[in-house]
Amino acid sequence: MTKIIIIGGVSGGMSAAARLRRLMEEAQIIVFDKGPYVSFANCGLPFHVSGEIAERSDLLVQTPETLNKRFALDIRTETEVLAIDPSKKEVTAVNQGKIYKESYDKLILSPGAKPFIPKIPGLAEAENVFTLRSIPDLDRIMEKLQHTAGGKAAVVGAGFIGLEMAENLTKKGMDVTLIEKANHILPPFDEEMAALAEEELHRQGITVYTNQAVQLFKDKGKTLILEDGRQLKSDLTILAVGVQPESELAQAAGLQLGERSGIIVNENYQTSNPDIYAVGDAILVKQELTKKDSLISLAGPANRQGRQVADIIAGLPRKNKGSLGTAIVRIFDKTATSTGLNEGLARRYFPHTAVLHIAGKDHAGYYPDAADLNLKLIFDSRTGAIYGAQAVGEKGVDKRIDVLATAIKAKLTVFDLPELEFSYAPPFGSAKDPVHIAGYAASNIIEGQSTPIQWYDLDKALAGGEILLDVRTKEEFKQGHITGSCNLPLNDLRSQMASLDKSKDYIVSCHSGQRSYIAERILKQNGFRVHNLDGAYSLYRRVKPEKISTH
Amino acid sequence: MTKIIIIGGVSGGMSAAARLRRLMEEAQIIVFDKGPYVSFANCGLPFHVSGEIAERSDLLVQTPETLNKRFALDIRTETEVLAIDPSKKEVTAVNQGKIYKESYDKLILSPGAKPFIPKIPGLAEAENVFTLRSIPDLDRIMEKLQHTAGGKAAVVGAGFIGLEMAENLTKKGMDVTLIEKANHILPPFDEEMAALAEEELHRQGITVYTNQAVQLFKDKGKTLILEDGRQLKSDLTILAVGVQPESELAQAAGLQLGERSGIIVNENYQTSNPDIYAVGDAILVKQELTKKDSLISLAGPANRQGRQVADIIAGLPRKNKGSLGTAIVRIFDKTATSTGLNEGLARRYFPHTAVLHIAGKDHAGYYPDAADLNLKLIFDSRTGAIYGAQAVGEKGVDKRIDVLATAIKAKLTVFDLPELEFSYAPPFGSAKDPVHIAGYAASNIIEGQSTPIQWYDLDKALAGGEILLDVRTKEEFKQGHITGSCNLPLNDLRSQMASLDKSKDYIVSCHSGQRSYIAERILKQNGFRVHNLDGAYSLYRRVKPEKISTH
Repeated sequence: MTKIIIIGGVSGGMSAAARLRRLMEEAQIIVFDKGPYVSFANCGLPFHVSGEIAERSDLLVQTPETLNKRFALDIRTETEVLAIDPSKKEVTAVNQGKIYKESYDKLILSPGAKPFIPKIPGLAEAENVFTLRSIPDLDRIMEKLQHTAGGKAAVVGAGFIGLEMAENLTKKGMDVTLIEKANHILPPFDEEMAALAEEELHRQGITVYTNQAVQLFKDKGKTLILEDGRQLKSDLTILAVGVQPESELAQAAGLQLGERSGIIVNENYQTSNPDIYAVGDAILVKQELTKKDSLISLAGPANRQGRQVADIIAGLPRKNKGSLGTAIVRIFDKTATSTGLNEGLARRYFPHTAVLHIAGKDHAGYYPDAADLNLKLIFDSRTGAIYGAQAVGEKGVDKRIDVLATAIKAKLTVFDLPELEFSYAPPFGSAKDPVHIAGYAASNIIEGQSTPIQWYDLDKALAGGEILLDVRTKEEFKQGHITGSCNLPLNDLRSQMASLDKSKDYIVSCHSGQRSYIAERILKQNGFRVHNLDGAYSLYRRVKPEKISTH
Repeated sequence: MTKIIIIGGVSGGMSAAARLRRLMEEAQIIVFDKGPYVSFANCGLPFHVSGEIAERSDLLVQTPETLNKRFALDIRTETEVLAIDPSKKEVTAVNQGKIYKESYDKLILSPGAKPFIPKIPGLAEAENVFTLRSIPDLDRIMEKLQHTAGGKAAVVGAGFIGLEMAENLTKKGMDVTLIEKANHILPPFDEEMAALAEEELHRQGITVYTNQAVQLFKDKGKTLILEDGRQLKSDLTILAVGVQPESELAQAAGLQLGERSGIIVNENYQTSNPDIYAVGDAILVKQELTKKDSLISLAGPANRQGRQVADIIAGLPRKNKGSLGTAIVRIFDKTATSTGLNEGLARRYFPHTAVLHIAGKDHAGYYPDAADLNLKLIFDSRTGAIYGAQAVGEKGVDKRIDVLATAIKAKLTVFDLPELEFSYAPPFGSAKDPVHIAGYAASNIIEGQSTPIQWYDLDKALAGGEILLDVRTKEEFKQGHITGSCNLPLNDLRSQMASLDKSKDYIVSCHSGQRSYIAERILKQNGFRVHNLDGAYSLYRRVKPEKISTH
């Protein structure tokens, strides 16, 4: 009878345990978890803070008892594994002070990742600074909130968990300040897409400091001193500056670690010891596009890896193919989501990276409640290979990114996107979906019909003498335009073309890029040299508000 | 200067016109349309009936004037093309009684499809029977509704347009009866999935007659006699029994037609005359999976074809790759959507077709307002090739079908589905998405871990002596179970296995299939012969309600 020990009873570990039982009815399966709960809804924790997930018990998806009844699993909670002895194939565990050893035939590590704790003076003395990883962490935060209702909260780190906490603390009635070290929120996103998401934080009354960090906690944590000297009061502070692999146990056992202490595994999820497997947030995976070792802390891949390692142990043909990295965060009424590489990463690995921005609607504009949707596509300007995508909007952004994640996985190119057939009726989409339009726009760039210029290159181009032609109507132009642009409405372009100078280089812009593209085509076919300001005015004004004039 | 004539100014035709202008600024482009409007929102028409799309003007997306200003198009509405002379390369058109000829270099036909009118006695005399294709059709229906508010309506045909009309007439306050000739609503769907959708019609008070047709209209259409002799009163009747290609003009011009009078085109959208192209609902396309000629009347493909034919005429490398056929219909609070082949079609073309049903949620069950979602996957039991999918639910079904449509297009197999990385946070999905679970379940079938039996094979299996074991709890069983089943709760299965007889064949069932699959694994590993009732009780009771007992 095979004896399998699993360390860590959340997503990856518990997926492995349940699948192992379904494949190996006779195996002895022991799951150790140092916490009091297994298989809890870790992605749901922030939503209990506001009461959106009302009942704490809703987060406890399974209990050791239910899992034992159904899967005959020997689940040992509040039991920490202190050491692994690979030569003897045994682990040393402790439960309530009692230390014992347990042997294994196969060992699966699913320890997860733990919050990174920055070294900040005063942090050790702070009494109101929390991280959020487990139910006990949540309990501590909820307890604190009982005494600080309506008070001030600070969230350090504007990644996914930081934003979810900022939202839920706001909904709980706290006055929230968000502090991010990078120059924009949502560091995995590109700056201009993050700017679209940040708007929603401002709209909801959250104070956002970017390019900032806490340099000191004072008054047992009730005062935060930022790097610029600013002082903040906080009744409750959440540290959410990222996670790191919980790999000390693996390291002590002599298993090979890689970048940022991630556990190295092979295609079969085997660590450097072939009887010890590892899955989940603690392992290094190949990023599918770059093929580089990466730490990708996401629930979906962790669950998949857990099931796959069970299959492999049971002798089924599975392979660790790496991860793409698709993530999403709801920010009040908006949602930001991404898949694959962002522009910065793509440019580092792929020299012919190009990008484009689409402003669309989640469904047909003539059907009620159509909402704006901004989509960015990152692709190869020669082959059309898709490297990544990001979307921000109220509705339907998850659908578009899921489709694009599928397209990337399947190695479709931008030329394939218009061929995709989506479920279209007016409440659900458009006959030309934003994903189709992204494919068409990318094809236009690759085939030379359109030559975009990005928002970050505009200043230099204008300084070099290019002329920025805004083809919106006179009324739109008057309400706000990019400083230095001149106005020639699209519908007058053909009749007034004689007023333009063919010796100049032109940049065309409009509201969202549709009219400027038509203008670009008209001008190019008439022999002008033209660039199209990608994303146009509606994107530019949001990432460069200081460059907008109304006179 | 190239002179291009386009016949038909809605989706395909107008997409072609706009793209042609962007690529051929110098071309002369004339668009003929026999109706008063071009580029109107034809998919939105039913939603104006209830007032959900409040303003008629919202349906008029573009006008000839706006299109002329922006694209320099010569748009001639209320102008019918009477004849095409391919040898002279000219068309004969009529506008307000004035007949004239216009020559062309290239001609694009985008005539669309028209409602099929069945031959029913009394129909010619009926004054209250309508079809819905155009704005004037809609105007006639709206006019009639002014005099029949709160009256009785009949909708003949329960396809997409029939269902949309049934919903919108109900919302307008009419008492609606739906009549469908097939044995279930939504003929493109399989019977059990259509049954899930039909529930919502009943819940909303619509009377549904399937296996029925109108055999006679009496009293100028105010009385309908059905085939079984039943009489219905109707103040307003909608005929929505399908569409047929508007291909008479093409036929008269000697162009080659195929199945059901669809216009035959090649990979370049050329008809049998190389200077005459055709796109949209009137052409035959290759169904992508079967490679058979098909009529696929959908807005998405029509728009794509219009753009592609413009590219081809302008010399860009495009190819008519055929269509998959993805469609969706909202039915009040539910949505039904499908892509690719249904089970019946797949079985006709692919001998190793298998199917499975997943009952899931649109997002994590512990996050508020998770809604049921039923997903059917149709695939090859040897290779894992995906042939089609159908989904019915309140939310999120469009997303899953769009992903699966992308997967089919990319020739992914069921083994690839678990590898897809979706944007997951609790409000948007689950770490194990229904699409992942469908992939896992299909893999289990292909690799022999699970052996499903379908709802339509259950009777025969039970008659042949197989034993139906319901592994739900005693309480669930008491509330309703499949007649002839016996109850052995999953959590007691291991301890009570001795009560089972290894010489018998067992079929396991539960509520949605998750527990029965675990039971199947336990039993199989203990040497039993077992089938798993696919979709389990929750599917079976809805398609076979007469086979459910409560005692």
